[in-house]
Amino acid sequence: MISFVRFILLVLFLSSPFLLKAQVVDQEVHRVVFQVTKGEAADQEQAVGQLNNILKALPNAEIEVICHGKALPLLLEAESQVKDGIVDLLTRGVVFAACENTMRRAKASKEDLISGVITVPSALAEIILKQEQGWAYIKAGN
Amino acid sequence: MISFVRFILLVLFLSSPFLLKAQVVDQEVHRVVFQVTKGEAADQEQAVGQLNNILKALPNAEIEVICHGKALPLLLEAESQVKDGIVDLLTRGVVFAACENTMRRAKASKEDLISGVITVPSALAEIILKQEQGWAYIKAGN
Amino acid sequence: MISFVRFILLVLFLSSPFLLKAQVVDQEVHRVVFQVTKGEAADQEQAVGQLNNILKALPNAEIEVICHGKALPLLLEAESQVKDGIVDLLTRGVVFAACENTMRRAKASKEDLISGVITVPSALAEIILKQEQGWAYIKAGN
Repeated sequence: MISFVRFILLVLFLSSPFLLKAQVVDQEVHRVVFQVTKGEAADQEQAVGQLNNILKALPNAEIEVICHGKALPLLLEAESQVKDGIVDLLTRGVVFAACENTMRRAKASKEDLISGVITVPSALAEIILKQEQGWAYIKAGN
Repeated sequence: MISFVRFILLVLFLSSPFLLKAQVVDQEVHRVVFQVTKGEAADQEQAVGQLNNILKALPNAEIEVICHGKALPLLLEAESQVKDGIVDLLTRGVVFAACENTMRRAKASKEDLISGVITVPSALAEIILKQEQGWAYIKAGN
Repeated sequence: MISFVRFILLVLFLSSPFLLKAQVVDQEVHRVVFQVTKGEAADQEQAVGQLNNILKALPNAEIEVICHGKALPLLLEAESQVKDGIVDLLTRGVVFAACENTMRRAKASKEDLISGVITVPSALAEIILKQEQGWAYIKAGN
């Protein structure tokens, strides 16, 4: 009987750190999927400014920026109004992804994207999958 | 002493799969609460298009669409401009829910909703509860 | 051998309640970070109305409202158009936080804020950190 009680106490004692450790890991790795849906010049400037603000506050943040709908031009070599800002963020490890559904509708090809930008089959599916993997979600814009 | 060490190793060994398994389950079940707050014709078309895109990319996704504020007309039998799209998504298992707070303000009753649409007491409370249960969150619109 | 099997069954039996309990705690504590980015009078009224709706549905909800960009005026003593609503929500435990990045750009100081409003270094970083800690996320506005 004593060994049984000791056994229960041991399991209680040993189980708690596993759960705590899992939480600490979540808090140390900052991962965020950042959805951009607007494409006016002011929206593009705002998105780049906000991404820089995140990296200033959380220098080790992993950021994936998903551009779809009206936000596709942000990532187009010939149309982006913030190309320098995008290239700078790319060199600092920010991932930019264009939605392939949007690209088909806009008749844009991968060659039209700023070099280093990736594509995802579906912007919304990607946002769902990232949240399932524990990434925070922020929708950009006003 | 040997049995004590063996015991600790066993607990370590046995605990990890439980945590891992919990994560794998989260990733396999795709559940998303989709908030719609806009109601112009173009907004309604966009919402239906985006929901179809999610189902194309993630055919087994469980989707709950929460319409409140200006988005209530989307779900009203007499006013929806995308009724066929809603009915089609309903038959494919998508849940559409109207906010009862919004319905009271708009003097709409449950009979005014497209058949099969449910209601929730509070759109925002529903979005919070779903996220607590592990559902991803997407805010529709630009 | 029998004691080994009994041991495994015990660990299985004892581990499940820990995981279950962790989930139940998540569901009972309703915590939401509420992002406000718009600042017109109608937007301010809507934000206060939505916060009251959340508290009506979930009276024990912990709410942190993050105002940044165009939403800063909501929290400025001299400019807020819903000051009474903010003060009432503050007395009911809602936390209102202004973004210090936004305040610098607007040349606003902490003395300009409605009494009781706090600040955070970066609105977006705060939203990420809260989600990492298990808070639900809602973006206000249409």
